[in-house]
Amino acid sequence: MNIPSDLDISRSTALEPLEDVAAQLSIGPHLLEPYGRNVAKISLEALDELPAEPTARYVVVSAITPTPLGEGKTTTTVGLGQALRHLGKRSAIAIRQPSMGPTFGIKGGAAGGGYSQVVPMEALNLHLTGDMHAVTAAHNMLAAMLDNHLHKGNALGIDPHRITWRRVLDVNDRDLRNIVTGLGGRVDGTPRQTGFDITAASEVMAVLALSTSLQDMRQRLGRIVVGYTRDGEPVTAEQLRAGGAMAVIMREAIKPNLMQTTENTPVLVHAGPFGNIAHGNSSVVADRIASRCADYLVTEAGFGADMGAERFFNIKCRTSGLRPDAAVLVATVRALKAHSGRYKVVAGKPLPAAMLAENPDDVRAGAANLRKQIDNIRLHGVSPVVAINAFPTDYHSEHEAIREIAEAEGARVAVSNHYVDGGKGAVELAEAVVAAAEEPSGFQLLYPDSADLRSKIETVATKVYGADGVSYLPAAARSLDAYEANGYGNLPVCIAKTHLSLSSDPTLLGAPTGWTLPVREVRASVGAGFIYPICGEMRTMPGLGSHPAAESIDIDEHGQITGLS
Amino acid sequence: MNIPSDLDISRSTALEPLEDVAAQLSIGPHLLEPYGRNVAKISLEALDELPAEPTARYVVVSAITPTPLGEGKTTTTVGLGQALRHLGKRSAIAIRQPSMGPTFGIKGGAAGGGYSQVVPMEALNLHLTGDMHAVTAAHNMLAAMLDNHLHKGNALGIDPHRITWRRVLDVNDRDLRNIVTGLGGRVDGTPRQTGFDITAASEVMAVLALSTSLQDMRQRLGRIVVGYTRDGEPVTAEQLRAGGAMAVIMREAIKPNLMQTTENTPVLVHAGPFGNIAHGNSSVVADRIASRCADYLVTEAGFGADMGAERFFNIKCRTSGLRPDAAVLVATVRALKAHSGRYKVVAGKPLPAAMLAENPDDVRAGAANLRKQIDNIRLHGVSPVVAINAFPTDYHSEHEAIREIAEAEGARVAVSNHYVDGGKGAVELAEAVVAAAEEPSGFQLLYPDSADLRSKIETVATKVYGADGVSYLPAAARSLDAYEANGYGNLPVCIAKTHLSLSSDPTLLGAPTGWTLPVREVRASVGAGFIYPICGEMRTMPGLGSHPAAESIDIDEHGQITGLS
Repeated sequence: MNIPSDLDISRSTALEPLEDVAAQLSIGPHLLEPYGRNVAKISLEALDELPAEPTARYVVVSAITPTPLGEGKTTTTVGLGQALRHLGKRSAIAIRQPSMGPTFGIKGGAAGGGYSQVVPMEALNLHLTGDMHAVTAAHNMLAAMLDNHLHKGNALGIDPHRITWRRVLDVNDRDLRNIVTGLGGRVDGTPRQTGFDITAASEVMAVLALSTSLQDMRQRLGRIVVGYTRDGEPVTAEQLRAGGAMAVIMREAIKPNLMQTTENTPVLVHAGPFGNIAHGNSSVVADRIASRCADYLVTEAGFGADMGAERFFNIKCRTSGLRPDAAVLVATVRALKAHSGRYKVVAGKPLPAAMLAENPDDVRAGAANLRKQIDNIRLHGVSPVVAINAFPTDYHSEHEAIREIAEAEGARVAVSNHYVDGGKGAVELAEAVVAAAEEPSGFQLLYPDSADLRSKIETVATKVYGADGVSYLPAAARSLDAYEANGYGNLPVCIAKTHLSLSSDPTLLGAPTGWTLPVREVRASVGAGFIYPICGEMRTMPGLGSHPAAESIDIDEHGQITGLS
Repeated sequence: MNIPSDLDISRSTALEPLEDVAAQLSIGPHLLEPYGRNVAKISLEALDELPAEPTARYVVVSAITPTPLGEGKTTTTVGLGQALRHLGKRSAIAIRQPSMGPTFGIKGGAAGGGYSQVVPMEALNLHLTGDMHAVTAAHNMLAAMLDNHLHKGNALGIDPHRITWRRVLDVNDRDLRNIVTGLGGRVDGTPRQTGFDITAASEVMAVLALSTSLQDMRQRLGRIVVGYTRDGEPVTAEQLRAGGAMAVIMREAIKPNLMQTTENTPVLVHAGPFGNIAHGNSSVVADRIASRCADYLVTEAGFGADMGAERFFNIKCRTSGLRPDAAVLVATVRALKAHSGRYKVVAGKPLPAAMLAENPDDVRAGAANLRKQIDNIRLHGVSPVVAINAFPTDYHSEHEAIREIAEAEGARVAVSNHYVDGGKGAVELAEAVVAAAEEPSGFQLLYPDSADLRSKIETVATKVYGADGVSYLPAAARSLDAYEANGYGNLPVCIAKTHLSLSSDPTLLGAPTGWTLPVREVRASVGAGFIYPICGEMRTMPGLGSHPAAESIDIDEHGQITGLS
């Protein structure tokens, strides 16, 4: 089966004027602020104009524990949104904005794929409307004001060794991970060790994603904790008088970006927080708008259901107050085969040839992961739908094996061919989703705000990850005590662990049991509104490979981009 | 005289739809790409559609040597553009995009002022269409690819001690001036000393400003020299295979941004290179477009006529092939009084009270600077027009003193009240400019491409600055020899010296004589296309003051910005 490249499909799409795309959701042209011809921001006045109560069924797309190659969650999200329109539903899709660093690093673009893409893919993958850059600018202005505060006498008594605020850039640059700043002479600042993270890892990005309005964002930015005084008191952006200027820098970024799929379905692209040290979900503001003008709102949560979906439920929905009606679990033949433990899948390399042979037994041998992730959805009172994202190398017997596993768990299941066939290929999936979403939602948070931080961590670890318990390094325990004392104990937790296993050990496939979650350290995103325990090495600044994608990207003699995939 | 704040004037302006603004220049709506409601990019297809030959008289606005407070060159540029329309001319204005760092640092916005502003000033001063951010992203991707090249084995044999490419951010952050990167472990890069400049100081910004087309920009980006091998050979962005991806990142940034003045005059805002280590002029592309659809194109060149105008003539016009018809020299009572040497003007502080008393003798005592800058315009065969930018604290006798000095030199002269009265206040100036521009232009470059680098430097130093000669530190002499050997001897020179004196010593006012220009070192912007000898300390990353402007900037309960000035 030969289908054109994503870039070629994107270019050959007949784009509708965005006014027409918005009109599908009864969003009038007066609420659109065009950015170039094919992207528009939606004015926050939409929140005042639209009905106060949600009209949409709210569907989150998650996955089983993925291989390092990913299992096509974005393309399934897009395909489902397209298919719902084939069923006569007014559908809207909400996804994260991709980071530019990886676009020029290893993976090329991140706009879905095949005939279920967000278009134009160049706009999505490059700058979009500048929201990422605004996050970078706001984040680094706070860093400059913080170091300037030290330089100008440190009236707040900030302990230079307890500064937690680093700087950010949207680039894959390993050399910026660990740096010493403030060298030179007396007028050049205060020497200290620090570093850069990629912009997606910025707390400002998480703030953007979790804010419910411009005013709420202003308050959250002010609450950001940048470090601690010598007495251990937290120091905030507000104390540095930076919160207002940061909000001003972010005042356009808070407006969601409207684009369309290859079938002209409306897509809101907004915010792109990391999926490990942050919650990995697109914005609350986009969902607040789309949920009030669509019949169905389909959104994607990062990584597997233990990661993105758990945070979707317990962080994002806790903040927004929106109640999900169904959850899609993307499963692939290759991922289930990988969970059998019989193969080794490596990022950036082709699959082992043996994995491509017809072998439903391999699929069945990986069933435990799918079962556990179905449970993880049910834990939150939401109906799961298993979406088998079909690949040309799959066999019918292998799809059937997945179907049997899902049905044995009582979950709805459908094969989806959206990559090759667009929305038409996902109609069976859309029907299953509609059936699931029309059941009354029993959505419930996994833990109340009032539980202490250790119980929150332990609840997620034992109920979602399947751990026997949690262990804390002394520094982690001290941080938890300090955060409770600082009044942050009411925040939800965002556990930073590998996405390649239900456990904290990326080599443990399937549904590992008999293990303990080791919490190495704990940090706080007080502005965004969560505490994040760290279990394992979390890389917050990627590096480039020997041959970065950037080397192959160029413009041709007509000014067209080449090499973006 | 009480006039509202710049922000209030900007907000109270009746904005015209940009289609109507563009229509003044016969630029059709199909050539506009809207970015929000009040800014649009102009498609480069305009270059194909418009007449091949310039239709416009081309006017550059420069100044006498300014005080640290600046003498209102942008507001005069805007006022003149407005006034030309009062005379029935189709006028266009072209200016640089302000840098966000200083907006949140000391000076607030940079959009002109009073009733001669570019509006909306918030859009101009914050992000605009993201061109600055694109420069940051392209610049830093090259830096990451360079460090990654070292990390992955350094096949090109780059000498880590001879890397000249730093990183950039659009923020005032003194702590980033001198840093050590690549610390941490083996996978975290190669430890070395480097630093960040502000984005306006990036060579990528100078490339953006000097490129004549997208393809030309692509080639210039590839020619950027990032350092030298152990054998002393230059290493380019092309050799690192970064030029294509950089051009892709910059492919929207190359399109000029259309805005309007408080009187709806079209303004092209495009590129913002530094005025000392770079040429300090807005883009060639904007001028190529506007010169072919207006009767008058008014553009601003940074700092005094020895700096911005000299580079306008010898770098920008050399590149674009456009021929200027007149040059405006902005003069103020306060600047001429300062050149008397009788007062000390300090940035960020009020003028000495004694300077505000009526004193035409002080003005006459500062005449030498104005005379020399008039000469500097004439050196290039262009007609000078002295614009007396009126302040409410001026006296008629003081304006008359300036008029007498200018007329004694045979220059046209006019008092301009655009700040208070908008275009109406600059009609006398506009009439003088029209008279000057309608004379046949005798424009000539000061030196040919073929002159060697030392003669180019010496020509500018002796003819424009009034130096007796030039001295070179040994390192500077070695660099000049190396650049000639590398084949860069045909490039023009951009002499980086203080803008506060015609000389290289900022404390020497008036028109200093009997001094020698000391060239400390010489660097090359091979991609942008100039060699820059450095004479004195050039700060390429500003710091913040004790109370940065950011501390007072916020959003109010209606989401309106407050504190931006």
